[in-house]
This record gives sequence, structure tokens and C-alpha cells, in this order.
Amino acid sequence: MMRLPYQESAEGLNAAFIGVPLDTGTSNRPGARFGPRHIRAESSMVRTYNATTRAAPYNSLVVADIGDVHVNLYNLKDSCRRIREAYQKIMAAGCIPLTLGGDHTITYPILLAVAERHGPVGLIHVDAHTDTGEQALGEKIYHGTPFRRCVDEGLLDCKRVVQIGIRGSSYSPEPYKFCREQGFRVVFAEDCWSKSLVPLMSEVRQQMGDKPVYLSFDIDGIDPSFAPGTGTPEIGGLTTHQALEIIRGSRGLNLVGCDLVEVAPMYDLSGNTALTAANLLFEMLCVLPGVQSY
Amino acid sequence: MMRLPYQESAEGLNAAFIGVPLDTGTSNRPGARFGPRHIRAESSMVRTYNATTRAAPYNSLVVADIGDVHVNLYNLKDSCRRIREAYQKIMAAGCIPLTLGGDHTITYPILLAVAERHGPVGLIHVDAHTDTGEQALGEKIYHGTPFRRCVDEGLLDCKRVVQIGIRGSSYSPEPYKFCREQGFRVVFAEDCWSKSLVPLMSEVRQQMGDKPVYLSFDIDGIDPSFAPGTGTPEIGGLTTHQALEIIRGSRGLNLVGCDLVEVAPMYDLSGNTALTAANLLFEMLCVLPGVQSY
Amino acid sequence: MMRLPYQESAEGLNAAFIGVPLDTGTSNRPGARFGPRHIRAESSMVRTYNATTRAAPYNSLVVADIGDVHVNLYNLKDSCRRIREAYQKIMAAGCIPLTLGGDHTITYPILLAVAERHGPVGLIHVDAHTDTGEQALGEKIYHGTPFRRCVDEGLLDCKRVVQIGIRGSSYSPEPYKFCREQGFRVVFAEDCWSKSLVPLMSEVRQQMGDKPVYLSFDIDGIDPSFAPGTGTPEIGGLTTHQALEIIRGSRGLNLVGCDLVEVAPMYDLSGNTALTAANLLFEMLCVLPGVQSY
Amino acid sequence: MMRLPYQESAEGLNAAFIGVPLDTGTSNRPGARFGPRHIRAESSMVRTYNATTRAAPYNSLVVADIGDVHVNLYNLKDSCRRIREAYQKIMAAGCIPLTLGGDHTITYPILLAVAERHGPVGLIHVDAHTDTGEQALGEKIYHGTPFRRCVDEGLLDCKRVVQIGIRGSSYSPEPYKFCREQGFRVVFAEDCWSKSLVPLMSEVRQQMGDKPVYLSFDIDGIDPSFAPGTGTPEIGGLTTHQALEIIRGSRGLNLVGCDLVEVAPMYDLSGNTALTAANLLFEMLCVLPGVQSY
Amino acid sequence: MMRLPYQESAEGLNAAFIGVPLDTGTSNRPGARFGPRHIRAESSMVRTYNATTRAAPYNSLVVADIGDVHVNLYNLKDSCRRIREAYQKIMAAGCIPLTLGGDHTITYPILLAVAERHGPVGLIHVDAHTDTGEQALGEKIYHGTPFRRCVDEGLLDCKRVVQIGIRGSSYSPEPYKFCREQGFRVVFAEDCWSKSLVPLMSEVRQQMGDKPVYLSFDIDGIDPSFAPGTGTPEIGGLTTHQALEIIRGSRGLNLVGCDLVEVAPMYDLSGNTALTAANLLFEMLCVLPGVQSY
Amino acid sequence: MMRLPYQESAEGLNAAFIGVPLDTGTSNRPGARFGPRHIRAESSMVRTYNATTRAAPYNSLVVADIGDVHVNLYNLKDSCRRIREAYQKIMAAGCIPLTLGGDHTITYPILLAVAERHGPVGLIHVDAHTDTGEQALGEKIYHGTPFRRCVDEGLLDCKRVVQIGIRGSSYSPEPYKFCREQGFRVVFAEDCWSKSLVPLMSEVRQQMGDKPVYLSFDIDGIDPSFAPGTGTPEIGGLTTHQALEIIRGSRGLNLVGCDLVEVAPMYDLSGNTALTAANLLFEMLCVLPGVQSY
Repeated sequence: MMRLPYQESAEGLNAAFIGVPLDTGTSNRPGARFGPRHIRAESSMVRTYNATTRAAPYNSLVVADIGDVHVNLYNLKDSCRRIREAYQKIMAAGCIPLTLGGDHTITYPILLAVAERHGPVGLIHVDAHTDTGEQALGEKIYHGTPFRRCVDEGLLDCKRVVQIGIRGSSYSPEPYKFCREQGFRVVFAEDCWSKSLVPLMSEVRQQMGDKPVYLSFDIDGIDPSFAPGTGTPEIGGLTTHQALEIIRGSRGLNLVGCDLVEVAPMYDLSGNTALTAANLLFEMLCVLPGVQSY
Repeated sequence: MMRLPYQESAEGLNAAFIGVPLDTGTSNRPGARFGPRHIRAESSMVRTYNATTRAAPYNSLVVADIGDVHVNLYNLKDSCRRIREAYQKIMAAGCIPLTLGGDHTITYPILLAVAERHGPVGLIHVDAHTDTGEQALGEKIYHGTPFRRCVDEGLLDCKRVVQIGIRGSSYSPEPYKFCREQGFRVVFAEDCWSKSLVPLMSEVRQQMGDKPVYLSFDIDGIDPSFAPGTGTPEIGGLTTHQALEIIRGSRGLNLVGCDLVEVAPMYDLSGNTALTAANLLFEMLCVLPGVQSY
Repeated sequence: MMRLPYQESAEGLNAAFIGVPLDTGTSNRPGARFGPRHIRAESSMVRTYNATTRAAPYNSLVVADIGDVHVNLYNLKDSCRRIREAYQKIMAAGCIPLTLGGDHTITYPILLAVAERHGPVGLIHVDAHTDTGEQALGEKIYHGTPFRRCVDEGLLDCKRVVQIGIRGSSYSPEPYKFCREQGFRVVFAEDCWSKSLVPLMSEVRQQMGDKPVYLSFDIDGIDPSFAPGTGTPEIGGLTTHQALEIIRGSRGLNLVGCDLVEVAPMYDLSGNTALTAANLLFEMLCVLPGVQSY
Repeated sequence: MMRLPYQESAEGLNAAFIGVPLDTGTSNRPGARFGPRHIRAESSMVRTYNATTRAAPYNSLVVADIGDVHVNLYNLKDSCRRIREAYQKIMAAGCIPLTLGGDHTITYPILLAVAERHGPVGLIHVDAHTDTGEQALGEKIYHGTPFRRCVDEGLLDCKRVVQIGIRGSSYSPEPYKFCREQGFRVVFAEDCWSKSLVPLMSEVRQQMGDKPVYLSFDIDGIDPSFAPGTGTPEIGGLTTHQALEIIRGSRGLNLVGCDLVEVAPMYDLSGNTALTAANLLFEMLCVLPGVQSY
Repeated sequence: MMRLPYQESAEGLNAAFIGVPLDTGTSNRPGARFGPRHIRAESSMVRTYNATTRAAPYNSLVVADIGDVHVNLYNLKDSCRRIREAYQKIMAAGCIPLTLGGDHTITYPILLAVAERHGPVGLIHVDAHTDTGEQALGEKIYHGTPFRRCVDEGLLDCKRVVQIGIRGSSYSPEPYKFCREQGFRVVFAEDCWSKSLVPLMSEVRQQMGDKPVYLSFDIDGIDPSFAPGTGTPEIGGLTTHQALEIIRGSRGLNLVGCDLVEVAPMYDLSGNTALTAANLLFEMLCVLPGVQSY
Repeated sequence: MMRLPYQESAEGLNAAFIGVPLDTGTSNRPGARFGPRHIRAESSMVRTYNATTRAAPYNSLVVADIGDVHVNLYNLKDSCRRIREAYQKIMAAGCIPLTLGGDHTITYPILLAVAERHGPVGLIHVDAHTDTGEQALGEKIYHGTPFRRCVDEGLLDCKRVVQIGIRGSSYSPEPYKFCREQGFRVVFAEDCWSKSLVPLMSEVRQQMGDKPVYLSFDIDGIDPSFAPGTGTPEIGGLTTHQALEIIRGSRGLNLVGCDLVEVAPMYDLSGNTALTAANLLFEMLCVLPGVQSY
């Protein structure tokens, strides 16, 4: 990733890129298991200095790529256990994980480990979908339910949850109602169209305060014209420059972890989805606590 | 379509999806004959409830997919005859057709049947091109001329015609002059750039009044970054969110028919064009007279 | 190109399309050697009259396609010599060259020939990158350095240089510092997001005055959602309508040459990048001195 | 499928096409869940009469498409239960299933239902891999183990098992050893190169006798030049004409079921893999007991 | 084509490449209208000397590319008239046409012109389909009927007709019966599998004698693994080396015209189909009467 | 590569995979600079045991991936110097290099280093082209000339050179004449069609004897239906099973180095070319001196 050195564990790192090549929680188009591989490949085009924000993250932080979590493709629950254990070690090392997904199922076990260390966290969640369904086919764990499970387990500080980019059709109004009931702030894509998100992020920073925040970015929050390589694309989404405004607007927050999920590269022959993901992960790194500008 | 039941005729339906797999009126890249097949395939991702507008169309209307018109690929005039006859039956059943094209030639025989029942109709026409040419190679019927033919036949209420998204190069200023002479309102793409179209649609609703309106949406009205799978793409087009603003802004009108034409799927390997088309057709359904919100 | 006649030299022409199929100055993805071929192929969809600006360039100017410069793919310096000589002949004929690149290396030898005739020129440079690096691997000539070399050789009137669309990561802040030191105006992409560029171009016209101006357009200035077919794409770029605003905003300037570079067609299966390039070259033609509207 | 009528159950049918859109047993590239959809789409090019063998299956048999088994993508074991139950109903109807996979995991629950009715069956298994692994990551059910599980459960008449097209690399010699120990006939791809398989099939018919035989065809048995759209392609495979020789050479056998698995369409932009699958399924239909020639 | 000079008419030429960009006679996938453009583009890789056969055609013959016939895409019958007239001029010039199709419909009007000059001709017809249907939807002219029409008009010397590569499914046995009744020799693909076609071509040369022969090559005669870019692909086809054996085996015949049809390039992203077509057309040129070897 | 450990130098290794990402010697389609990256990615599907030949190379040899040579993309001669120096170090370590190209230019500097240690070597050269041109545009070093340069420098034992798969068109008979004059054995593709190459390789083993042999495999020796991702494809080539026969038939020879060149992955969307390359490199490893079977 980013031509960084590879090391086996998170020991001694301020931040680490880590892949979770799981996609068996996908309801529609699978393929996010190859997200980490393609994001790493495209990240070879991402250099060390951020020309626009002037951040030079490697001058301030010790960062490495610590490879992939070994998931069990044939058993979702066992995969969740493996992911949680891997992140418990990262948390124990005091390292901030920057995760390359994988489908959105993975954020549930990641947040289990994160909240174990930090308590319930604030959440900036960029996505086309709220991912707060109750179940499907009797299964409570798949990529449509992670934030419902997080609420069930008390992992989120529900007054500090914002969901940005929500849109599309659904089977019922129920998941939206659930979000409202928890006190989530839901920002529909429609309310973002043709607008700068700088003012929104100013409000979000106020909402988050200085307590721990987790940033979970589903690439399908972005419009499929920019990021076609994903499992459940929805038209009328955010632009990449709005995505940059969201991440850059998170500077100054107490970020304790970030993920970029649902990159299914075989649906994007141009490679732009993985390229976008690699750049967004670099921008996340650039706004972590402690990064200086030059 | 939309995982709806299939039935053979429009009897007993409030609205029907219907395919017209014709593309031999195409001047440049053919392939729109496969538009219906791919739009149907991608529509499996469109669910029943519109999260943004809260419309739940299947609660209010009886809707089905009634299959494809059997066109004659080797004879454009005979195809026009077949299309007209098929739509005469739909009109007789009191059903609103939502058509999956096919190239834009098909709107001419459709409007022949529609105007037979409703008289000259108002027209909301989204497109990169005015489609008001006189002829090509001596042929008066192909996808560059349908609205000229409609004017010739008195099918349009010319004071209630708006064309949105017009742009690109042409062989002469003549077709534009024709539109102005008929009293069409022509909204160039240039006048839409970086703007919300909500104010425009407010004016359009006023212009249309409560008399019958037909909505004809050529996918090339949208920019090729969103919808590359079409026969004659032109840069600098509308965004998908502007497309949604146009359709959602048609709510309250007396819509008597809608079409979505010129999807040539083999020019879009990501499938986004067909996905966009499927969503736009669902949005059209959501604004038909009688649809309730929840 | 544009279904224009082909002729072997620039004699008797007001303006000429010319290809430079060189890509061995590319640092990342090669393929721009096929830019001219694909831009010509897609230009068959560009017609003679500009519906929006009403320009009809072939009524005012004598224009032809004069084919490709014969470059030496195995030797960059020899290619630069060949390009310079070819453009000296075009300059001698009093013809304005509209170049189909090729990677950005080619602008250096082109400007050598242009400045030989016109003296130091003003420059409107659209790009994601400043292209003002000093060297790579000890080589001073490749696609990351052309404008540094132009400054070295005194080919630019540095007070009349504007760079639009700059963004992305880099290896160091040095190239940006160089631009500021020369007095270039650098307009970051971030400053263009969600905005009309009409006001910017009004300022640029004032800056340029009536002295000679060269327009160099790297297709990667535009966002990869519109133009994926390029060697070093960067997210968060300009829209095609902003590109049109830049070119149309150059009307009235004393343009002495234009290029459109870095189209690498095999990275764009939809052909939209080449289509965009063909349209932008047509728009450049439409704003050359002497073109009338109808 | 094949433009056949759709019906909900197998009642009254001699043979039925049925889809099993499961791919969560896939070790490498997922996507076979879309196999049934794309095979059905491409089957629109398959007509009713077999020009070469003169078989006209619809004159002899009652055939329909009975849709897809509703699998549980998030739980492999529950999916196996659902598949087994669906096939028990088909078996009870006395109908021969022609299955559109899905990954190869599905053959295990299918054979559970088949052997329940017919006892241990002979097997013609075309594949690059023996699929006789013991487990992976502790999981005994995924697409690398179905025939090991079938042996464990006594579903196969091991003296009447032939595996054709085996090749490629593996992690150990163990699965091959297992096959030899069971008495399977393993025909390596190497032994098929540049040869007609007509003589081989004559031997196979003798080996199978007149007892029940199941035909399981993994599309990766065919070389990836013909069938790139699959999860674990191996070079040096069978040709499509050898595939036709195998199926046509099965005429006269007591076939009680057939499947065609591992079509992962997104890895084949030309659609040839699904086209090949559709044709092979038609050829399987043409050799079922009772089909006449004309 | 082949980097040859372009000239407007066939005057003074021994042989000419000519494009017929018509595809509105296509029953399934359109796109052959772009066959000529893409074959010409890929022919830039075909050089002047045939390394294997040692033919150097441009040393012996005067050859040029004479551009495309201007067809009427909206009217098949008018297109046939235009093609016939264009070929009458070529025939009058004593020039041998090497045609770049276009769908197979075009061979009918071409043979009208050829037989007008040469009388009924022998035919070497390579194809997956016999193209001897009677009609479709009441239309007698489309790409499924050209050789039926040729027989109707007496353009073929039926005892000197051979069809090679026939296979696939059909709607009825009738077209095959028609061929047999006319005395055509029909060589099924099945009879070509894994074999050299050198012996077959020896028999064909004897059958053709020294009277005029026309060679009509439908690219779908070749297997879709080599040539996916076509409208009605059928599995189990000829290899490209068998195609070369057929054409090289035609050396010495009195060839009066050749065509290569049904290249639909958008179905072949690799460009191999057009590349194959360009090479086969070069090989046809190499076996024309009068070509010397070196 | 092959999931092997990475190490920086060849010290202590029996064999090493090494990439040479150079493609600026390419005459037609560039892109082979990405060959090493994609071959490594696809090699993740190649496991450790060769099921057909029973070779288990990692049981016998110490093997690693030693990364890429740092080439200078802007200067071919400097790249040749860098490659030669890198291979001198590998040779000094007594390690056998298995090279992932890169275009064929690289074999010249590799053989400079190989012959420095081993003296003039025998050569098994699989390719569509002889690569024995004298120069192009005055440049003596590019991918059309490496074996001419090798002869000039005395690096080859010309009586022990075999070229297999030669075909296609060329500009003149001269390069073929040069090969014959040096005593090379040239095996045309035509002489391989539909044949096993086992007998040929038996002769080749005899020709090579027990003196040092280098195996240079240009992926374009294989037919473009199997390996479209290359710069100068030629129809009518070898099959992958013939490629396997060539490499497996090299077992027992005194192989001192192998390369696999000209993989240009962006021309192969299926990834089959890189997959084939990865497998062929594994097969080369399996026939190196000292590898045992199990």
C-alpha cells in the first residue's frame, strides 16, 4: 500500500493499512474480496505529499501495511471472530487502523474491537444505504445490518452518528425509522446535490466534539459514475470532491479508526474505483491526529 | 421488470412496463434493441419503496410488465405500424405505458396512438438533440426526426413542449430554428450546468397545466460519464441528479405516458446506463397520477 | 479528423489538426501514442456547426488534417528534434496548429517552434499536474518537465501563465514552489469545485491581453469519471462543462496554437475520453481568431 | 431459458431447467451466483433444432424452466439444505433436472436428493479439478470438496466415476491419491490434447452401462480461451468441440440429472462463457433418454 | 486499409478493398456497420510480405482502398440497390473487389453485380450458418437469406458451391434440406474438428475448376474464442489456422471477388476479430490470380 | 510471485523470479511495463505442486522473488546498462533467473550477462517473430532486434538456436534470410498446427545437448485467442498446450535462464494472458536442473 514497507504486526506503528478480503456478506454483486488487492495496486500512483492540504503524513507518523486478516470465506460468523481478534491486537498496540474492505459486514467486528478499547464511539458513516436492517433470510449478520448490530451491542454513541449520502430504493421504510429513533443524523444525497459539504462538516465537527470518532466510508456513497466498482450502486450519489470535503473536514477530530469498504474491482474496468479508494485512504491518513502540514 | 409479474396484455392495469427492442432507426451506434433486456436485468436492484420521496407505487397502482412489442427489424415502416397497433390496445385498456426503448424513432408511433386517445399532448422531452430533422438520405422516419413527424401529424400541443439538455454539434442551424418556430421551449444543457433544476420544473408544471402530458426521456440527455451506453453521446450533459429533479418535478402532472429510450448497453460495460434507466423508469412510475407517499 | 480532407503540408491553411503519436515520455501508463488515432475515429461524431455558441468554423477558416509527425519511439531527444522541425514548417506557413497528443512531453518542442516565431507566449495550461519537475532518473525531458524546460529556454511570458485544475499528491512541494516563483497563476481544482469558471476566464482574458497565447490542455485536468483514458488520472478534477467554459472563455484571445494531450485510449473502453478530446479540439477551433457565428 | 415457458414446479415435466444462484462456496473469484441469469440471457440464441445431431428435443419431451432455488447467501449449510429439499421435489415429480450453477458446492446437495431416489449413481465429471479435497480452514463444505462428501455419504457408484479434463497445480498430491483409491478413472487434460474424444466416450458408455448416471460439467474443464468467465481457470484445457463430443457421446446412457456449474459471467465480457454454457445445456437436453432425431 | 493509398474509384486497379458498413439486416446483435472501420484500423499491423507463403502481392498487383459504399441504414432494399450499383462500376473497371462487411445481406447485391459480368459463379462459403432461409417476418432480404436469393436469381453455379463450418441450432431442418436439393456441398464444423483442411481444399479446387469463383467468408465460421466480435456466434467452430488453410488452399482458382463479413467489433474488446479479418483479407489478396512469390 | 517470500538479492538462491518493467522498445502497443505486476497478481492462483508432471519445485530448490530491475523508461540504452548490471549480480550469485518481462528488448542485455558467465548459449526461442531485424529509424536497440544484436556480440551458439512459432507478415524477407544464414532452426507455426510438439522437442533436446541453454518465451508465440494481452499479436499461433509441451520438453536440459516477455495486460481484460504467463513461468521452474518429482 502506497509503496509502504510491509510488517507483520501493528507494534510500534501510529497507523496501519490493513486489508479484510471478505465479501460473503454481500447481497447483490460479490467481489469486494479483491478490494484490498486492487486498492494496493492503484495506490502505487499515490505519492507522499498532499499538494492541496500540504499534509506530509509520513513526516509525522510511523505507518506500515500489515497485510490482510485471514478470513474464512465459507463461514461469516467465524470470519467475524477472526476480524475481531485481529483488531484487538491492533488496538492493544495503540495503532489506528485504516482498513481496506471487504464488504460492510466487517465494520461490525472492527467496531467490537474498537469499542472494547475506546467505549462507544462517534460515527461518520458515508454510504448510499443506512445498513441498519434487522435481518435477511433469518441471518442477522451480513452487509445490510452492521450498524443495527453495533447499536444492539452498544458500540455507538448514538447522538454522535451522522450518515451521509443516503438514497435509493428499499424494501420498506423501517430501517430509516430505526435511524431516526436512535437519534442518528441522516443526510440524504438529495440534500448534498450541487453543494459544497464544507458547511455540513463544520456542523459535524461540532457534533463529534473531542471524543473518539470512527469514520466508515462505503464507496457506494459516491456516485457510480465515479465509482462503478461496487456491489449495490445507486444513482444520484456524492461526487469525489464531496468525498474529499468530508474527509478533509474531519481534520481535528479524535479519529480512532477508518475504513473504506465495498470496492468490487471487477465491476470497474477503468480501475477508477480502486484509485478513488486509494486516494481516500491517503486523505484519511492525512487527517489523523498528529499529522503536520508543510 | 422490477421483479413484477408478467402478463400478456394491459387489461386491468393502471400502468405497464413495455419494451420496444428496435434500433434500426439509429444513425450512429446501434444496440438499443437490447435496451429492454438490460434495463430489466438491472431493475432487479430497484426495490419497492422510494426512500427519498416516500412514494410506494405498488400500494396505489396495479402494475405489470407486459413484455415486448414484436417489431420488424428489417423494415422501419412496418415496425412503426406494429408499435402503433400495440399502443392502441394499451390506450384502449386505459393503461399508462412506461416504455423501455429502443431508439427514439419509436416515440413517433407511440404518440400516434396516445394522441388518438388524448388529443395533442404536452411534451417534456429530455435529450441532447432536438430530434426535429426533416429527413436523412430521403428517409423521413428514423431517430433524428420523430418530433418533426409528430408536429406534421398534429400530435403535439406545441405551446406545451419543453426540450431539456440540448447541446452538441449539428449539420446546420435548421432543426433549432424549426423548434423556435413551433414555439417549443428549448433549454440548453449550458443553461443547466451546476444548477438545481427544481426552479425550472416549477415553471414547466405551470406551462403544462392539467392537460395530458407525455414524458420522453432520451438517456443521452444525461452526460456520458453517467450513461455511456448510448448511440450518440454528447459531452457536457445533465447529471443523474438533475434527471431525478426533472422526473420528480413532474409529480402532479397529468402524465399519460412515459418512455426511456436510446440505451445501447454494449457501450457500457459497467451496466450503469441500464441501471440509471431502470431507476428513472421507477421514478416515473412514482410520479404517475394516483401514487401515494408513506 | 472531423471528416476533413487530408493534405500533406500546412501550406494555404489557417488552421490544421496534426497528430503527435509519442508516449515514451510517460511515467506511469503508456498508450497516448494511440491518442491521435482514437480521437480521429471519435471525431466522426462531431459535426460542423456548434449549436450552443453558433460558431461555424469551416465557413471562416481553411482547415485540414495534415496527418502525424513521424516520431522516433526509441529515442525521446530525436523525437523532440523531429517535432520541432515539423512545427517550424507549420509556423512558416502561418498556420495555427491544433495538436492531438501524445504525452505532454511534446508541448516542449512545439513551444520551441512557436516561440521562435512569436516570441515568449502566454499560456493557458489545463492539467492535474504542474509539469514543472526538474528531472527524473537524471533525464530532463519526459512528461513531468515540459514547462520547466520552457522556462529554462525563455519560451513563456511568465506573467501570462495560468494553470487550472492542479491537484493530487506529489513527491515534494518543490514543483509548486517553482511555479509560484515564476509568477504563474495556479488555480487548484479545489477552487473550481461546483463552480462556473466563466468568472475565472474573464480574469484570464484580462491577464492574457492581446499578445500571443498558447492553450495546452492535458485531458487529465478533467476528472477521471469523464476521461478515464489517460496515464496519470487524479480524482476530484474538472467537469467537461468546466472544460467547455475554459475553452469558450478563450474566445477573443490571440491564440497561436492549441494542444490536447495524454489521451491513452485503451484505458477507456467506452471511448468517452477520445470523444471528449475530439469535442474539445472542435471547440478550440471554434474560438480561433477569425471564426464567425451564425 | 431457451425461450421456454416458465412454471413454478416440476410437476408434469420430463425435464426442467433450474438455476442455483449460489457462489459463497467459491475459493477464488466469486460471481457464479449470476451464472443462471446470464446463461438464460445467452440461451435466447439457442434455437429448437440441433442441426448436427438432428435431435429435436421439444418434439419428444415436456420441458420447462422452473426458476431458481432460493438459496441463503450468508449460510452455506442452510443453502445446502434448501437445495436438497428443492431437488427432492423434482425427483418426486419424476423429472430430470438440468441445473444452471452456481459454484460446484451445489452438486453435493443435488446428489443427496438424486441418490435418495436412484441409489448410488455413476458420474461423468468434466472439470479442471478433482474437487475431492477434505476441507479448507476447517470447513468441509465448499466448492473444493463436493465429490469427497459424496463418497463419504455413499452417493456414488465409485467404479462408474470418470473425471475428464483434470490439470493445473495443487497444494498436494493427496486429492489425486484419493480419487485413485476410490477407483475413479481420472483422464488428464494432457491426455486429451489435439485428440477426438469419441473413442474415450465409447469406453465411458461401456463403463456406465445402463444404470443411472449423473453428468456434472464444470465450465472450467474447458480451456479459458473458450470460457474465461469462471472462478478458477486453468490453462491447457479442453476445447468446446471436445465438450460437445463428451455430451453427444453420452447419448444412450440412463441420465438422471445434469448440471453446468461455475459460470462467473463478469469475468467474460464477450459473453462466450454463458453462451457456451447455454449450448452445452441444450446438448445435454438433446441426449436425454427418449429424445428423437429428425 | 493496410496503409494503402485511398482512391475514389476502381479505375486502373487490379484489386480493391471496399467497405460496406451495413448491419440493418442483422437478426441478433447489430454492429457490423463498424466492421470496415475497425478492420482498417487493425490492418495497420499487417505488413507487405507474407512470411509463410512468400507472397508479395503489391509487387504483382495494383491495389488501393476505395472507401465505403454509401448505404441507406433506414431502408434495406435501397441499400441493396446502392451496393449493386457500386459493384457494377467495380466490375466494369475489371477490378477484383475485396469487401469489408457489413452483415451477410450484402453478398446478395454484390453477387448480382458479379454474375452480371461473369455469369453464375462457383462459391466457397465459410460460415456457421447456411444463410439459405426463405424469409423472416415476411421479409425476404436480411442476413439469413442471401444465398437463397442468389439461387432464386440464378447467380450461383450450384454444382460448384461448398459451405464450410456449418453448425449450431436452427428453427427447422428446412434450410439444410434446401442446400442438399441444390447440390451444395455442406461441410459441417464437426467434420473439421482437430483436422487439417488441406485435403478438403484439394477436393474443392478440383470441384471449382478454372471457372469464376467467389469467396464469401463470414467471420462466424471461425470459433468465437478467436472471433467473438460477431452477431450470431456459435460454439465449436473453425480455428484461425483452418481459415488460413481454406484461403491459402484457394490459390490457383479463378477468384473474381471475395468478402469478409459480420465483424461486429464492439463485441470484441481485444480487437482480435478485426485483426483476424484484416489478416484474412490480406491472405485473400495473396491468392488472387497473378500474385507472385519471392 | 507465487506467494513466495521477497528478498532483495539473489544470494543463496538456486532460482529467482525477477521483473523487468520496460516497454519503451515496443514498436506497436506498449504496456509490457505492467507485465510483472499482473503476472505476479495472477500467480496467486498457481499452487506448489504440478499435478500433471508431479514436480514439486520448492522441495528441491531455494527460490524467491527478488523484485524488479529499476529501469529508465526515458532512455533505452541506459535501461540496457541497468539490466545488464542487475543480471551480472544474479549470475555472480550462481542463481538461475526466471524473468517476467517487459518487452523483448530486455533479452539482449540479459544475454550479455548470461554469456559473460556461461559463454555462447543455446537458445530455445518461442515467438511469432524472429526478432532479427537490423534497425528501425536508425535505432539498433528495440524489441525487433535483440537476437541480431546477440549474434553481433557472439552471445549465441548459432548451431543450437531454435525458433518456434514464427508466422505473420513482415516488411521484407531479410530477417528470415539472416536466421537461415546463421544456421538457426526456424519452425513456422504452420508446421505446428494441430500437432503434438513432443516429437519436435525430442529433436531439440538432442540439438541442445548438455551445454548451457537459455529459454526465451515471447507470449505472442501463443495464439491471441489464448493470449490477447500482447503488443504485436499474430493469428494462427501456438496453443497453450503446445507451449506446455515445449517447456515440459525442455526438462533435462542445462537451462541457465528463462524469460517470459511481451505481456501487455491492458489488452487482456480477462487476465488470461497474465495467468498463462504465470503458469508458464511455474512450468519453467519445474524443469530446471535439480527439480524432483513426487
